[in-house]
Amino acid sequence: MFRTHTCGELRQANVGQQTTLAGWVQRTRRMGGMTFVDLRDRYGITQLVLNQDVNADLFEIANKLGREFVIQVIGEIAERSNKNANMETGDIEILVSELIILNESKTPPFTIEDNTDGGDDIRMKYRYLDLRRNSVRANLELRHAMAFETRRYLDQMNFLEVETPVLIGSTPEGARDFVVPSRMNPGQFYALPQSPQLFKQLLMVSGFDRYFQIVKCFRDEDLRADRQPEFTQIDCEMAFVDQEDVLQIFEGMVKHLFKFVKNIDFTDSFPRMTWADGMKYYGSDKPDIRFDMKFVELKEIVSGHDFVVFDSVPFVAGICATGCAGYTRKQLDELTDFVKRPQIGAKGLVYIRCEADGTFKSSVDKFYSNDDLKQIAAKFNALPGDLILMLAGEKRKTQKALCELRLEMGARLGLRDKNIFAPLWVIDFPLFEYDEETDRYYAMHHPFTSPMLEDIHLLETNKGEVRSNAYDMVVNGVELGGGSIRIHDSALQHEMFKHLGFTPEKAEAQFGFLMSAFQYGAPPHGGLAFGLDRFVSLFAGLESIRDCIAFPKNNSGRDVMIDAPSIIDQSQLDELNLVIDLKEKI
Amino acid sequence: MFRTHTCGELRQANVGQQTTLAGWVQRTRRMGGMTFVDLRDRYGITQLVLNQDVNADLFEIANKLGREFVIQVIGEIAERSNKNANMETGDIEILVSELIILNESKTPPFTIEDNTDGGDDIRMKYRYLDLRRNSVRANLELRHAMAFETRRYLDQMNFLEVETPVLIGSTPEGARDFVVPSRMNPGQFYALPQSPQLFKQLLMVSGFDRYFQIVKCFRDEDLRADRQPEFTQIDCEMAFVDQEDVLQIFEGMVKHLFKFVKNIDFTDSFPRMTWADGMKYYGSDKPDIRFDMKFVELKEIVSGHDFVVFDSVPFVAGICATGCAGYTRKQLDELTDFVKRPQIGAKGLVYIRCEADGTFKSSVDKFYSNDDLKQIAAKFNALPGDLILMLAGEKRKTQKALCELRLEMGARLGLRDKNIFAPLWVIDFPLFEYDEETDRYYAMHHPFTSPMLEDIHLLETNKGEVRSNAYDMVVNGVELGGGSIRIHDSALQHEMFKHLGFTPEKAEAQFGFLMSAFQYGAPPHGGLAFGLDRFVSLFAGLESIRDCIAFPKNNSGRDVMIDAPSIIDQSQLDELNLVIDLKEKI
Repeated sequence: MFRTHTCGELRQANVGQQTTLAGWVQRTRRMGGMTFVDLRDRYGITQLVLNQDVNADLFEIANKLGREFVIQVIGEIAERSNKNANMETGDIEILVSELIILNESKTPPFTIEDNTDGGDDIRMKYRYLDLRRNSVRANLELRHAMAFETRRYLDQMNFLEVETPVLIGSTPEGARDFVVPSRMNPGQFYALPQSPQLFKQLLMVSGFDRYFQIVKCFRDEDLRADRQPEFTQIDCEMAFVDQEDVLQIFEGMVKHLFKFVKNIDFTDSFPRMTWADGMKYYGSDKPDIRFDMKFVELKEIVSGHDFVVFDSVPFVAGICATGCAGYTRKQLDELTDFVKRPQIGAKGLVYIRCEADGTFKSSVDKFYSNDDLKQIAAKFNALPGDLILMLAGEKRKTQKALCELRLEMGARLGLRDKNIFAPLWVIDFPLFEYDEETDRYYAMHHPFTSPMLEDIHLLETNKGEVRSNAYDMVVNGVELGGGSIRIHDSALQHEMFKHLGFTPEKAEAQFGFLMSAFQYGAPPHGGLAFGLDRFVSLFAGLESIRDCIAFPKNNSGRDVMIDAPSIIDQSQLDELNLVIDLKEKI
Repeated sequence: MFRTHTCGELRQANVGQQTTLAGWVQRTRRMGGMTFVDLRDRYGITQLVLNQDVNADLFEIANKLGREFVIQVIGEIAERSNKNANMETGDIEILVSELIILNESKTPPFTIEDNTDGGDDIRMKYRYLDLRRNSVRANLELRHAMAFETRRYLDQMNFLEVETPVLIGSTPEGARDFVVPSRMNPGQFYALPQSPQLFKQLLMVSGFDRYFQIVKCFRDEDLRADRQPEFTQIDCEMAFVDQEDVLQIFEGMVKHLFKFVKNIDFTDSFPRMTWADGMKYYGSDKPDIRFDMKFVELKEIVSGHDFVVFDSVPFVAGICATGCAGYTRKQLDELTDFVKRPQIGAKGLVYIRCEADGTFKSSVDKFYSNDDLKQIAAKFNALPGDLILMLAGEKRKTQKALCELRLEMGARLGLRDKNIFAPLWVIDFPLFEYDEETDRYYAMHHPFTSPMLEDIHLLETNKGEVRSNAYDMVVNGVELGGGSIRIHDSALQHEMFKHLGFTPEKAEAQFGFLMSAFQYGAPPHGGLAFGLDRFVSLFAGLESIRDCIAFPKNNSGRDVMIDAPSIIDQSQLDELNLVIDLKEKI
């Protein structure tokens, strides 16, 4: 027994008791004949006191303690004369009578404080020290709590957590699969799952009825800012359900997490928005509805005024930023620069200032009379003092750019408080996505997603209009999860393959296995998956998923702490019947 | 909404209500103008009734239903005239007024019954149908419950579940590592973890204090009967603990699982046995203590009677099988054949029958008088009617053979009831294991296991006698888990490396990374890992871990259902800079 208490639990009520504590030396302060040591563990910090007059030897030892030394102390719990209200243990201190150094420490390469002096690179290299920081550990504690509460809720709802295999088969088009050579099956490879989709649908065929799994998934892709080659999903599937059943159960799960982890009660139903409305009013399939500032489409009202920019494009729309009429030239230039950035790609920005006196001032005064501008402003229900911002161009691109501008204005106006959460179901996604490059329709989710039955008649004539039984859970503009009702009928599935341009042979090669299983009594089923990393980031108010992962990889997929991946022994390659043939980069 | 109830929940109290059910057709029986359908889902079976006189059309449809068709029915819940006490829903039946076929089914290749007509191979190929069998699904339900209760207990005990990476680095001697080529880092490989040992020790350095994870681990080894290339561990580690702390916490966990999953209360502390006693009395480091039948060592008492078999060997020992004196010649021959099997390897078996009349009859009467035999029998406290079985030879081999014989006799005597559980801590393992072939000592657990402090003085002089702070949890002769207190002191760790024959360079290459971390204030720590697959098998009373895994692999590491591993596209190999070079088998 190394301790009787943790460094976070002693209080006024313990005064007078003996205690044994163990932990890390956060810092030491010598004040004349007294030395104070802050002793830290996962649970908190407790102040130790050593008095030269009481025990000169101990006092000497304490003065030589370095940062991050591991020590054990025995002493009496005493009331502090000057209490520290900022510390949970701030009422007490330990009058140390014994002190044992359990382990020494080299000076850490950065300070173990919430605001550390360490940069990203060095903190990642010494991640095991970075994890000592309260702020980092708190993210992992939150992650634990969220995973645990997810399981508690789903268990209550009769879901079974079933482990699906990590070593599976590579699909013929599994270009982003990580593969694993098999020593026992020379020349053959396993693949790591990008998701357990196949297996969870099989479990529905198996009658498991309600399945979930918190599971690692893998994707070998070039890593954008916020992706990891291994990531964790809350993966779920249910049988004998329609979309409403799925939304109810998982709205319950999200509410449960908010309640038991964040202490936030959502009593009302989450709002639902069709994908079409998301695009129309927010230019996004994951609208941030913490604030309104909806798009107003203006093509009709602005046309015919000889303003060629508006006349020559198919789409003009704008937003109204409340109270921003006072924006300076400089601020407006900043916004113009913002929308012209290549990632956003607008050609320019048109503004209308709704002046306090009821007049209007715009960057296109030449083409629009005060009355014209007034009519436009009326479309936004704009009030004196508001600022209208307008973009024009091809529809989708302009919607996307205006979405970014809206988010930027929301941020500038402080409307995106990370402690406010606005959940939203986005529903009625299109079944197909048209790709201009290949002039082909692709499944927007995956080929097993069911079309809405009332749209099936459009499959032949108007693919683009067919809606699917797919849904996404969006909070604060972040897609936390999504899923769909699956096709369980072989005939409809074959029709879908046809519409997706699969020959029967190709469909068989890629999906034959699941199709065979479906011939033995597949129930209607559907499900969804949440990204746990993103969910935790949202709850923690983090910018990046990396900060809620204990040992993340960098943008090159490297773990810089353990220096992986790395070369392996020739003998291992030989055993696997592999030869490395590095090609020159072109 | 596809159903208002499940097929397992309707009771007498529901009689008169309307219900909508959905599920699979287990079987149909036509009896004159009535057809009965057993409708099955995960929760149970409910009887449907269709009456020709009431609805001739529905009656016709019902008579054409095949096995495993998926249907939905609406009807009134009625009391059965002849109730079935063997079914939870046996008091009621559904008078069907609507019937919809949701999906048809081909005839399954084997019957979906507890006792199926399907062999192992076909059931594995159609695992998704095998999983429909109640007996198989029950194992997975048990697995879910055990994992959930494990998490609930450890959460209560302040453990944090932390996900450690699946894509890690290969260790220089990681011959059994699965490796994963990295596309973004050409020529380099990740490895899949054989255990999260490194990371959990790092988390202790990070001050996480109490860590656990239910986690997939991977080992690319030739698969013995009951191994899988991917397996699941309950992996745990604690800081500021000694062995007693670890045993207390995890004894609590095992008791919690017995209580909340099996409804078995263990109020007493689990017994503990030293490794030395395990070998001495049971010839095993994982004794099955459901029954006694301890070894008695006999070398001294049997020597000097001109019986060359006993005189020429270093070790003679026996067991006493209560009430087996009546064993026939044939039965004794069976036992002799049993111990002479190559896996067991004894040269022969000596028996002493303790006859009812107080005399003795043995296979070595020529060398031992009745009085000699009486003295031997006294060593066992044998009573008239008992049978003494003796083996002789080299000590370890004989102990191992006698252990097998003891287990066989326990089985024959019905002393190994799988519904009785006898947990045991085995402690004080040797630190080193001597390997004759390489004439070297190896770490019995791993190089980070701490020696017992009182044995450290033996490190130089008598390695074989040094005990470690290692422990195993054994139930019914099955090793469920094990672990150790780790070395946290760099000086002792370097001494251990020396004793294990590592040069400083080699130690640095293999373990340098962890050693570096240890220089920044490593706390005393220890932990253990349980094999979840084995734990579930034990609770389920299964012979093989395979039966409690949803999608297991066969002895060649193949998933025969999805036919993995398999060859991959040339383009994938090219992207990974790999060439397959299949060597001919020698």
